[in-house]
Amino acid sequence: MGEFDLIARYFTRPTPRAALGVGDDCALLQPAPGMQLAISSDMLVEGRHFFADVDPAALGHKALAVNLSDLAACGATPLAFTLALALPRVDEAWLQGFSQGLFKLADAHGCELVGGDTTQGPLNICITVFGEVPVVDGKSQALLRSGARAGDDVYVSGTLGDARLALEALRGSIALPADLLAEARQRLERPTPRIALGRALRGVASAALDISDGLLGDLRHILKASGVGATLDTSIAIELLAASAHPACAGGLFSLENQLECVLAGGDDYELAFTAPASAREAVLAAAHRADTRVTHIGRIDAAPGLRLVDGQGGAVDGRYASFDHFG
Amino acid sequence: MGEFDLIARYFTRPTPRAALGVGDDCALLQPAPGMQLAISSDMLVEGRHFFADVDPAALGHKALAVNLSDLAACGATPLAFTLALALPRVDEAWLQGFSQGLFKLADAHGCELVGGDTTQGPLNICITVFGEVPVVDGKSQALLRSGARAGDDVYVSGTLGDARLALEALRGSIALPADLLAEARQRLERPTPRIALGRALRGVASAALDISDGLLGDLRHILKASGVGATLDTSIAIELLAASAHPACAGGLFSLENQLECVLAGGDDYELAFTAPASAREAVLAAAHRADTRVTHIGRIDAAPGLRLVDGQGGAVDGRYASFDHFG
Repeated sequence: MGEFDLIARYFTRPTPRAALGVGDDCALLQPAPGMQLAISSDMLVEGRHFFADVDPAALGHKALAVNLSDLAACGATPLAFTLALALPRVDEAWLQGFSQGLFKLADAHGCELVGGDTTQGPLNICITVFGEVPVVDGKSQALLRSGARAGDDVYVSGTLGDARLALEALRGSIALPADLLAEARQRLERPTPRIALGRALRGVASAALDISDGLLGDLRHILKASGVGATLDTSIAIELLAASAHPACAGGLFSLENQLECVLAGGDDYELAFTAPASAREAVLAAAHRADTRVTHIGRIDAAPGLRLVDGQGGAVDGRYASFDHFG
Repeated sequence: MGEFDLIARYFTRPTPRAALGVGDDCALLQPAPGMQLAISSDMLVEGRHFFADVDPAALGHKALAVNLSDLAACGATPLAFTLALALPRVDEAWLQGFSQGLFKLADAHGCELVGGDTTQGPLNICITVFGEVPVVDGKSQALLRSGARAGDDVYVSGTLGDARLALEALRGSIALPADLLAEARQRLERPTPRIALGRALRGVASAALDISDGLLGDLRHILKASGVGATLDTSIAIELLAASAHPACAGGLFSLENQLECVLAGGDDYELAFTAPASAREAVLAAAHRADTRVTHIGRIDAAPGLRLVDGQGGAVDGRYASFDHFG
C-alpha cells in the first residue's frame, strides 16, 4: 500500500466543521468571530513515551489525549488536529487499531483530523491540535500559567500517580496485584483529557496547566510564570493516588513515601493543576460539578518563592521529588 | 542541558504577531477578521528526506521551506509555525546551526515560532505551519487542487529536476562537475518556497499545488481533484532543468531522456504547478512579474482524463516517469 492509499483508507473522513480537510496542500480552518485559536503540538516516540508492544488503539487514544490535555489546560474547545506519522512499515492491523483509538477520542470531543503527513521511518507520532477560546471585550479567556496570586488556592483534578505505578510495574521494577495493575495501566495508556473542566474553569481559575511530567515539576512552571511560591499538604496529596485505597497498598505493599513520590513526581497524569482565589471556592466546586470531574484543594499560593510541602499539622515534610525531563 | 533550557536557548524568541508564543500549554493565534487559517504539517526523517551529514543550517531551512511551500500552493500568507523535534542527543553545535537556518527563513517570511515539543529519539523534525487567506464575499481565496478546467493553461514556477540531479550525485549513482553539483545541491538543500507567487496568483490561477514528489505525479493530484486530463510539451519541459544549460550537459553528460526524467519525476523541487484560463495569460505574467518569479507555460488541461506528453511538433512522447512515494 502506498502513502496516498494509506491516508485514504485510514485517515480520511468527512470534516463538516473545517472549511477544507485532508487532501489538498493545506487544510482551511475559520475560527468563529471573536474566537482565538489555541494551538499545541506533541511528539510521541517509542521507548520514551510508550512501549513497543503497546496496544495500537491505546496509542492512538494517548497520542491525541496528551494534545487535548493542553487545550484543556488553557480552557479551549477542541476543533481540529493534524497528524504526522513516521512508520517503519505499513502494518494494516496496527493502522486499523491506531486509527480506531484515535478517532474514538476525536469523535468524543468533536475534533476533526484535517491534515498531516505520513512517511517511512522510526515510529514517531506528531499531533498538532487546534481549539478555540473566546475573546471577551478584547481580553482572551484562555487560562494561562501566569495568573496565580498569593492567597490563591491550589487544586488538582482527578487522581495522580497511578500512571507512574503502572509504568514501574511494566518496567518490572515493582510487582502489582493483577487488578491493581489493570486499573493503573488504564490511567497510563488511556489518560482522560479534562476538556470539560478546563472550559468550566474559564473566568474562575487564575492559572492552569496540565500535569505531564509530575505535579511538583509542572506546578513550578505556574510559580515561575506567576512570580509566586506555594505550599502543598502531603496528607491530602497522598489520597490522590487511587491505588492507595487498594487493600494491597493499605496492607503495606509500598511505603507512604513511595506513594507520595508517585503522586508528586509521577508524570503521565494528564490532570489539570490550577489556582483560584479563595473567594472563588464555590465557583470552583460548581465548575467541577458541571464538568463531572473531581477536584481536590491541595494547597495555597504564597508570596514567598519556592515550593513547600507540609503534613496535615502544617509541619515541614522533607523529601526531594524529581520531575520527568525528556533529556534528563 | 535539559529540555526546558534547550527550548529557552534555541527556540524561544519574541512573537509580536501571535497573542501568545512559546512557554504556555498552548500558543494563541488570532487570524484577522475575514481571514481563514491555512494549515499544513510535514515530517522530515533522516535517510528519507535528508542525509545524516547534511549541514544543520540547510536542514533548518528545508524543514520550514517544505511547509511554507504548502502555504504558497494555496496562496496563503505565512503567520506562524510549531516545531516538534526528536533528537538522539543534545548537540549544541547542531542546534545552533539548525535554529539559525530555520529562523533565517522564518524571518524572511515574518513567520513566528509559537510552540512545539522536544524529546529524545531518532532524529525527526515535524513542523506545522499556519498562514492566512482572505475570504471575500463568503468565498475563500485559497488556491485549491480542484479548480482546473479543460482549456486552461498549465504552468510551473522556477526550474525543475536539479534537486534530483544533486540527490543522485550525493548517492553516488552519477558524477557531476563540481560547479554543477554545487548549484544543484543548493536546489536540493535550500528550496525556495514560492510564497510571493502563490499570493500573486490568488484570483488568477484556477488550481495549484507544490511539486514535492515530481511534476507528473503531483500534477495528477490536480487532474484527479478537478476531473480533467492534461497534455504537456516535453520540448519546453526539458528547458526547466537549469543544469541542461551547463556545458557538461550540452556536451552529452546525460541523455535527454535522463534530463527529462529529472524534470518530470525528480521530486524535491518545491516549485508551484498551477493552471489558469487562457484568458488570464496576461494576469499570470503580471503575477510572475510582481513576485519576481519565472513561470513557464508547459501545457494545457484537457477534458479527456489522463496525462499525455508531446514533443514540440505535437507528436506523442513515450516513456513512463514514476513519482516519489514515501512507501514505494
